[in-house]
Amino acid sequence: MASKRPDRRGFLKGGAALAGGLTLGAVEPALGQTPASDGFIRGNKELVAYGERSRFVKSVRIQHPPGSRPSPDAFGKVFHVAAPLQDSVGVITPSSLHYVATTRGSFLPDIDPREHRLMIHGMVDRPLIFTMEDLKRLPSVTRLHFIECAGNRSRSQHKTVQETHGMVSCAEWTGVRLSLLLKEAGVKDGGSWIVSEGVEEVKGASSIPMEKAMDDCLVCYGMNGEAVRPQQGFPLRLMVPGFEGIFNTKWLRRIKVVDRYYMTYNDYGHLRQDPEGAALGYQIGPKSVITFPSGGQQLPDRGFYEVSGLAWSGGGAIRKVEVSTDGGRRWMDAEIQGTAQRMAHARFNFQWNWDGKETELLSRCTDELGQVQPTRAQVAKFWNVPLDSSFRVKGQDNSIQPWRIASDGSVHNAIF
Amino acid sequence: MASKRPDRRGFLKGGAALAGGLTLGAVEPALGQTPASDGFIRGNKELVAYGERSRFVKSVRIQHPPGSRPSPDAFGKVFHVAAPLQDSVGVITPSSLHYVATTRGSFLPDIDPREHRLMIHGMVDRPLIFTMEDLKRLPSVTRLHFIECAGNRSRSQHKTVQETHGMVSCAEWTGVRLSLLLKEAGVKDGGSWIVSEGVEEVKGASSIPMEKAMDDCLVCYGMNGEAVRPQQGFPLRLMVPGFEGIFNTKWLRRIKVVDRYYMTYNDYGHLRQDPEGAALGYQIGPKSVITFPSGGQQLPDRGFYEVSGLAWSGGGAIRKVEVSTDGGRRWMDAEIQGTAQRMAHARFNFQWNWDGKETELLSRCTDELGQVQPTRAQVAKFWNVPLDSSFRVKGQDNSIQPWRIASDGSVHNAIF
Repeated sequence: MASKRPDRRGFLKGGAALAGGLTLGAVEPALGQTPASDGFIRGNKELVAYGERSRFVKSVRIQHPPGSRPSPDAFGKVFHVAAPLQDSVGVITPSSLHYVATTRGSFLPDIDPREHRLMIHGMVDRPLIFTMEDLKRLPSVTRLHFIECAGNRSRSQHKTVQETHGMVSCAEWTGVRLSLLLKEAGVKDGGSWIVSEGVEEVKGASSIPMEKAMDDCLVCYGMNGEAVRPQQGFPLRLMVPGFEGIFNTKWLRRIKVVDRYYMTYNDYGHLRQDPEGAALGYQIGPKSVITFPSGGQQLPDRGFYEVSGLAWSGGGAIRKVEVSTDGGRRWMDAEIQGTAQRMAHARFNFQWNWDGKETELLSRCTDELGQVQPTRAQVAKFWNVPLDSSFRVKGQDNSIQPWRIASDGSVHNAIF
Repeated sequence: MASKRPDRRGFLKGGAALAGGLTLGAVEPALGQTPASDGFIRGNKELVAYGERSRFVKSVRIQHPPGSRPSPDAFGKVFHVAAPLQDSVGVITPSSLHYVATTRGSFLPDIDPREHRLMIHGMVDRPLIFTMEDLKRLPSVTRLHFIECAGNRSRSQHKTVQETHGMVSCAEWTGVRLSLLLKEAGVKDGGSWIVSEGVEEVKGASSIPMEKAMDDCLVCYGMNGEAVRPQQGFPLRLMVPGFEGIFNTKWLRRIKVVDRYYMTYNDYGHLRQDPEGAALGYQIGPKSVITFPSGGQQLPDRGFYEVSGLAWSGGGAIRKVEVSTDGGRRWMDAEIQGTAQRMAHARFNFQWNWDGKETELLSRCTDELGQVQPTRAQVAKFWNVPLDSSFRVKGQDNSIQPWRIASDGSVHNAIF
């Protein structure tokens, strides 16, 4: 292109004002034609039926933790696949890129939906079995919701935002209110908890307080406008908005109404037996992360950039996101795209003119309950653990994520 | 399953009350276990990287009009692929199922985004060329928007909602405001229209009023959380919210500021030269359609069903959707899911107890401007064409779609 612009004035490069007084480094005055297409994709029957992404788009999920590999004999092995948040735009995670966590390894139940049933039983007046067709006849709701693995946390050895925060995703879910099914079955006096079970032997059974079950839980058959994907629980997934990912039971087949908290395999992460404490601990705290610029990315030069990221909370809708571009001394309000939904990702943007000097970018969010995302020091204090490279917490870590921008434009995880 | 329920009481079948006094035919009392999984999907590297849908999900797009086939020599041939609305849930159309319309047939530009440029030129102070990286540094917005082909209409020979209404889809779009780019280039006095051009020779050049360009048009690189798909214009698509689909230029590479309306190939459908009339005609009218139950579907028995559908308008957000279950004599408000967005699909639901008798289901919507979706008779009168099987209009047909429910539960297109 350069040869076509002999008299390039370079005024934009040097500092012409982009609308609003911003400076963009790389925009060039137009003195020639834009290049034509390199060639053509020849369509076929499959491309008519179900389209594909561009061969130039390489964004993929990775095994988590970084460096781990799928085992050929994967049963009983924790299998975590993290979403490429560094490439994310908007609030929806494409279903093909939604994070996955299972103890089944890379094996997934291969369920024929015509054979699948959901049973509601236990302390109910009328135990019921629903086919998929039954469920689809019932009143439905569609809501945007995030799911996050409780183990989604930044470690000093993590380089990218996919590694530090990729165990969270957000999708448009469609299904039936669990409260409707429970009311139809008739919960008996004393039925104060439910246990949900999926077609996964060692995981997928969770104790959930009846109050939550009756509040906003959904039995979902739809995700991002089509059927729930197999890796997300096809044909049926329980949505427990704002609770740790493990409660959102995949391949859902049974819900039992019980009179107390039952310990299950799911409790390995938070071995509490006090029901109230346990239920409280399930709720994801307010959390945000900058996805651009983030670890491993490179700023080509000084000038204008849009800082962009995601914020979410189990406590409801995100009300405010603040960004600091100087390591936390000053905080400024970021812009939230559209209307933030409850227990859903909110996309935030912040306009930044980088002066080319080393600095640190941070974000913090506040949810509708007024909960503010904590610092790492606050989380360490809460869990009574040292604030050094040995930092480990036994529950969620929703602390503020710092990204260091080096003077060469490279971006690094700056938690220590 | 039946053999496991010897003493099935069948009270639900006969008329037990579902919450709210509704009757669901098929739910069965739970007396046995639900079946276990049939087997397992064994994961592989590809499934880790980018997930797939279930092999049991067969929902696909079809060539439009029904019966047409892709030509091996497809250049210059209209190629329409319709979305399977009968299987849709929520408001988002999965990118793989988004409708496609092009004159290139099944051939698509195969564009390397590193080589792609967007040029802003014509009556501007500073002609500019943007790389994809430039555009991604600029302030971005994310919005839900439908796109509809102006030729999306029901004909008596169409059997399914995919055939009658499948040339419309809705996605979450992310990009840069066109107004920002135009302001940066500096529109000269008298620059009152823009012409947008994509990497498609015979189509994709549209005259758009400057007022619209400055209002809410977007230059989009993101769609449903990832890069725009090739069939939707990768790497760049112009979004002209609420205007006929043909204006949403795919593979966008040039925007020229001009001082008058230019006739282009796009005008074949509405050969008007009066700029005001033309611009007015571009806007999609208020429209809705019931996706379940819809043509070709089958109601297994009388009882409770959720009637569900989509509504949209180029005039802004959908404010109201009404449903009639008796051929249009009485109209009742449907429930709109969440907050309807401007120029986006709204999902509506209506709870219906079918008595097993033949009837007709209809929906009609009202947008934020107060525009009401017209009857077919009103559309015929507007275009001064006969209201019989010869019914043809030269522009949009956003009339009310009737579905006839036969007494055997089969569903049929009832436009004549």
